[in-house]
Amino acid sequence: MNTVEIIRKKRDGNVLTSDEIKFLVSNYTKKKIPDYQFSAFLMSGFINGLNKSETAALTEAMLYSGKIIDLSFIKGEKIDKHSTGGVGDKTSIVLAPIVASAGVSVPMISGRGLGHTGGTLDKLESIPGFNTNLNLKEYKSVIKKCGAVLIGQTDQIAPADKLIYSLRDVTATVESIPFITASIMSKKLAEGIDGLVLDVKTGSGAFMKNLKDSENLAISLINTAKAFNKKVIAFITDMNQPLGNNIGNWLEIFESIKVLKGEVKGDVYELSVSLAGAMIYLGKKSSSLNEGIIIAKEQISNGKAFDKFIQIVSLQGGDLKYIYNPEKYPLAKFIEEVKSTESGYLYEIDNFSLGMAALELGAGRKTKEDNIDYKAGIVFKFKIGNYIKKGDVIAELHSSSKIKLNQVKKDFLKIIKLKPNIVKIPKLIKKIIL
Amino acid sequence: MNTVEIIRKKRDGNVLTSDEIKFLVSNYTKKKIPDYQFSAFLMSGFINGLNKSETAALTEAMLYSGKIIDLSFIKGEKIDKHSTGGVGDKTSIVLAPIVASAGVSVPMISGRGLGHTGGTLDKLESIPGFNTNLNLKEYKSVIKKCGAVLIGQTDQIAPADKLIYSLRDVTATVESIPFITASIMSKKLAEGIDGLVLDVKTGSGAFMKNLKDSENLAISLINTAKAFNKKVIAFITDMNQPLGNNIGNWLEIFESIKVLKGEVKGDVYELSVSLAGAMIYLGKKSSSLNEGIIIAKEQISNGKAFDKFIQIVSLQGGDLKYIYNPEKYPLAKFIEEVKSTESGYLYEIDNFSLGMAALELGAGRKTKEDNIDYKAGIVFKFKIGNYIKKGDVIAELHSSSKIKLNQVKKDFLKIIKLKPNIVKIPKLIKKIIL
Repeated sequence: MNTVEIIRKKRDGNVLTSDEIKFLVSNYTKKKIPDYQFSAFLMSGFINGLNKSETAALTEAMLYSGKIIDLSFIKGEKIDKHSTGGVGDKTSIVLAPIVASAGVSVPMISGRGLGHTGGTLDKLESIPGFNTNLNLKEYKSVIKKCGAVLIGQTDQIAPADKLIYSLRDVTATVESIPFITASIMSKKLAEGIDGLVLDVKTGSGAFMKNLKDSENLAISLINTAKAFNKKVIAFITDMNQPLGNNIGNWLEIFESIKVLKGEVKGDVYELSVSLAGAMIYLGKKSSSLNEGIIIAKEQISNGKAFDKFIQIVSLQGGDLKYIYNPEKYPLAKFIEEVKSTESGYLYEIDNFSLGMAALELGAGRKTKEDNIDYKAGIVFKFKIGNYIKKGDVIAELHSSSKIKLNQVKKDFLKIIKLKPNIVKIPKLIKKIIL
Repeated sequence: MNTVEIIRKKRDGNVLTSDEIKFLVSNYTKKKIPDYQFSAFLMSGFINGLNKSETAALTEAMLYSGKIIDLSFIKGEKIDKHSTGGVGDKTSIVLAPIVASAGVSVPMISGRGLGHTGGTLDKLESIPGFNTNLNLKEYKSVIKKCGAVLIGQTDQIAPADKLIYSLRDVTATVESIPFITASIMSKKLAEGIDGLVLDVKTGSGAFMKNLKDSENLAISLINTAKAFNKKVIAFITDMNQPLGNNIGNWLEIFESIKVLKGEVKGDVYELSVSLAGAMIYLGKKSSSLNEGIIIAKEQISNGKAFDKFIQIVSLQGGDLKYIYNPEKYPLAKFIEEVKSTESGYLYEIDNFSLGMAALELGAGRKTKEDNIDYKAGIVFKFKIGNYIKKGDVIAELHSSSKIKLNQVKKDFLKIIKLKPNIVKIPKLIKKIIL
């Protein structure tokens, strides 16, 4: 097979064979195809697209660049959830203990914050001692003991994805549904799962800003999961405002604990039990999605989900004092309130900018080398549709840096728009694709 | 300016500014933009295209990556010709002396053979001693003395073109009209010319196989020449059969001498005087193209073109004995005849394969490092429309290698197709665009 001929074929809009795609990925991973040829392929694929079978072949080639974890020693179904990323999205932290407590194993390999979005790993690491850096042996041991485990990407899993993502990042080939699909699915399929629940975000705080793109991504992910005989349910959910009120790592763990204890019942609760319900259903512990959701709610109200969370944190080395009494632990050094200068119904949040504001306060990284300020973030007090009076505290800004805090505060009100008339409350779950 | 943003802009089908294109080319030439980003740009430009002004900007950026030769010390117009390459195309060798003898200077920087096509430099170097490797001082001195000079590409002229071409070659981004245009024009504009005659080939032996592509390339070249205020005339000419009868370096010099002496009057003569006539017209030595052609013919019949050829060869160090008495010099070691096994009208030649056959015999290079067998090649005895009788010698194969010769001979008859009915003779000059 000839690299240039394969690139030419995709350049001219033809469909590549599975062998041709494997040839490219495998030789690129082995450094036998140079970056400049692979980037030409990426651009040709970006512009001309990859069909269903090409996307599956790309996923497979990337998957087999590394190890596939064998979890067959665990009885029952192993189900994971993947979110395309958003602002204040702490559902993984809430649903993993719910689902595990309902008897479905959750092997979860998560990512760090990317751009304006937070990352499950960063959030968990705000619990002192929590170790997301387990090796495969420890990973298997934790899931065996408690039915859930939450770790970070390892070099053994889909190494081609890391290589290809780095190249996409510098060649303007990131925002491609087939490439995003292969990147997500190659890592998820390596976990040893039987099924996957997808949370595809849509809106100003999502990578896919409009519903059509989000649906296309969901369909592409579903097609690819099915090509590998995995059970799959996709949710398309709103990301035009943050999920919950807290944005920032420790702030989000705090909110997650409240939800797990059944003390808070808003959107985080609603989405977490819905996604968890779908996982319970795929995990054969309910006979329908609705029954799964009912079970998920019970696991919160009967305290079993919170107990499971305690067990997970304990097995992964986290300090349980923080979980039992989160309110006892200090918040960020500086906290400033932002007050509204007008009255009206909240009808629009620039959710991307809200995520970026949290990052600016220290909750995220601007470069890979940046350290995270775990206590930094934003408590955003309102939801779209709420009436805000002049002088109301819209948000609290938390940071260990007064300078950053002042910078963010200065322009904060630009993020929201008020309107004199009643505003329709946006639907949280826009679509479920089974 | 940001490289990824510029690539993204072209990826999304937008028009780049002149500054953006210059930023890419200039930084790529300085190695500040890596190959993998430039190849992503090339692929996006290949698929989404470059408009007239983008093509001119690319040409300009590549042109200014090197020196522009100043020929202002030479009185009168400086006019060159460029051919997109073909099989048996020796017109440069014939027309340079015609035009120079008519008082128009011809500063000609030529290329070597590429793929199935021959190169003017390789042909000239089959004359023992002929030096195509002059420095700029010698280049200026020769054209000052005799009105013409024929040399090869130097590192000082459009170095960006060499870099970019190498990358295009391995990333399937060669066959793009804007990129071909910029590659040709950046080198031609660096010669210090006032005008340019273009010979865009079309047909089975050309890089552009169909008339539409050839016309589009011609128009793109004309637009770019005009953007730089150069006078230009484009010819679209037939390349469905070789030009003349001889293919191969010394064989073509031999045929060129016959034409320059007025002893042969076929298609080489016709095309050479037409292109030369256009150069004479652009060089203000005639008041019309037709008058230019009449003058060109006169320069052959009055012997002045041949005298000028002698002068050029002499100034560039070539052995004049070969020019005065070409028939005295031995041909290739082995010569084999190929005879027709059937009778009929010659209606199709696979001219690409004919060029490749000459290359196989030793007339061209398979890799950059190959040495040329200057005496190797093919004498093809017929033209499309001729009647061939069974047993007629269709071609003579010349080579210093008996093995190569036998290999080529074995399949040679597959190159041509005969038909029982009379065949229309194809037009040599298909279009002239002024």
